[in-house]
Amino acid sequence: MNEHELAVLKIGGSVITDKNGELAARTQEINRLAEEIQKANVHNLIIVHGGGSFGHPSAQRYAIKEGFKEDGQKIGFSETHHVMTVLNGLLMDSLIWHKVPAMSITPSSCLITENGRINHFEDTPLKALLKMAFIPVLYGDAVLDTKLGFTILSGDQLVSALATRLNAERIIMGVDVDGLYDADPKVEKTAKMFKHLTLEELKKLHGKLGKPTVCDVTGGMLGKIAELMPAIEQKIRVTIINASKPNNVYKALEGETVEGTIIEKV
Amino acid sequence: MNEHELAVLKIGGSVITDKNGELAARTQEINRLAEEIQKANVHNLIIVHGGGSFGHPSAQRYAIKEGFKEDGQKIGFSETHHVMTVLNGLLMDSLIWHKVPAMSITPSSCLITENGRINHFEDTPLKALLKMAFIPVLYGDAVLDTKLGFTILSGDQLVSALATRLNAERIIMGVDVDGLYDADPKVEKTAKMFKHLTLEELKKLHGKLGKPTVCDVTGGMLGKIAELMPAIEQKIRVTIINASKPNNVYKALEGETVEGTIIEKV
Repeated sequence: MNEHELAVLKIGGSVITDKNGELAARTQEINRLAEEIQKANVHNLIIVHGGGSFGHPSAQRYAIKEGFKEDGQKIGFSETHHVMTVLNGLLMDSLIWHKVPAMSITPSSCLITENGRINHFEDTPLKALLKMAFIPVLYGDAVLDTKLGFTILSGDQLVSALATRLNAERIIMGVDVDGLYDADPKVEKTAKMFKHLTLEELKKLHGKLGKPTVCDVTGGMLGKIAELMPAIEQKIRVTIINASKPNNVYKALEGETVEGTIIEKV
Repeated sequence: MNEHELAVLKIGGSVITDKNGELAARTQEINRLAEEIQKANVHNLIIVHGGGSFGHPSAQRYAIKEGFKEDGQKIGFSETHHVMTVLNGLLMDSLIWHKVPAMSITPSSCLITENGRINHFEDTPLKALLKMAFIPVLYGDAVLDTKLGFTILSGDQLVSALATRLNAERIIMGVDVDGLYDADPKVEKTAKMFKHLTLEELKKLHGKLGKPTVCDVTGGMLGKIAELMPAIEQKIRVTIINASKPNNVYKALEGETVEGTIIEKV
């Protein structure tokens, strides 16, 4: 694997938090992942993480995704962003402790959406960081929106936008199941995992996929898939792997084959 | 005091941290200040805080202000930014707990300096926050620099730039002494405080002021003064007050007279 080709690694909120709790970080998993990232020593890398039990409960309680409707939501917007910075801080702490030159980039400080879609993204600091071989770390966030006032930007939309905009070679989606299934593997025992999908096959599947088991304002697996299509269209290879299984992220970063689902344009 | 006129409140690092320690937050002071800000209920406000014993020790240890010279500094840049986000998180936590609709803006995510001076500042999210009556909170930070690679942006430069750019009416500088003295009041028992200074008088004084007692890579009081001159030139009124004394910040936000130093153009 050419280390000069950009990789975007998504770490799912369900991997680093317990979605059945609230503000429940899995600090051992965060440390394990920081170790794997340090060991892989990939230089051209962007990390994006989800919100899990940090961002989602506040966002849902105050209906932040639906936009500004009344003043009572404002403290909810502040809170949603704040708890995401707390989760991000736990990951940054562990990465820096492991001597990974990681630098957090706050999405709400440098981008604005329009009806939930990124429409203004100041990426000068991000590009400067990559040029100096830092590893930028971003996350799903509560952001300002030109039409809605504010909304939720999912980590998945961010992954797709970053990969597309910066011509990434590959996207590694680290989730808490082994790959993409034809039904929700946490509910349906007979759910079958896809090993390889083309963009055409993915489009056909779209709409039939399993729903997430707990609250996820950003749409869970269904949302992830729809978000990644523009990147796949641009020939960026997507690998969905189980980041909860030790060494999977390390191996994927190293370019080794890991059990999972590969999605490619052709 | 017209609450629609923008105020910029600086909270010195020495007020919310113990500069003789390392990563030593004064959480009681942080909570007291959050209470005072909540009670004042000013709507058109930006808060900027310093680094104190969070940002300064890392920045100094790795010579971050002097710019990128060798790879070993990179983890120091990451660390300096990270510890600033930790200090910011403590303040944000307290503000949100007190139901203040505050939102942190990460300087390194939206601006870049050139030889240490802000030269590219994406302030669209910041302006959108003010328009929705959120209180943006920024801080001195480790930032990328077009010439130096990276450097330190002081909270004081940020205060001056924000006030000037957004046509603030006033700047409140909350420090840990009663105002501006003709010598360092922590060293010289006979130091005399100025009650009122014009820009001309300030310029004459520049160069004679007291040096800070402990390490401060951003220059302490001397740096603060030089940084604020462009704002004063633009007729923004500066009040230097002791934010370590209860109710001073509350009163200053309310427009009440507080013991301190007033600096005006005329």
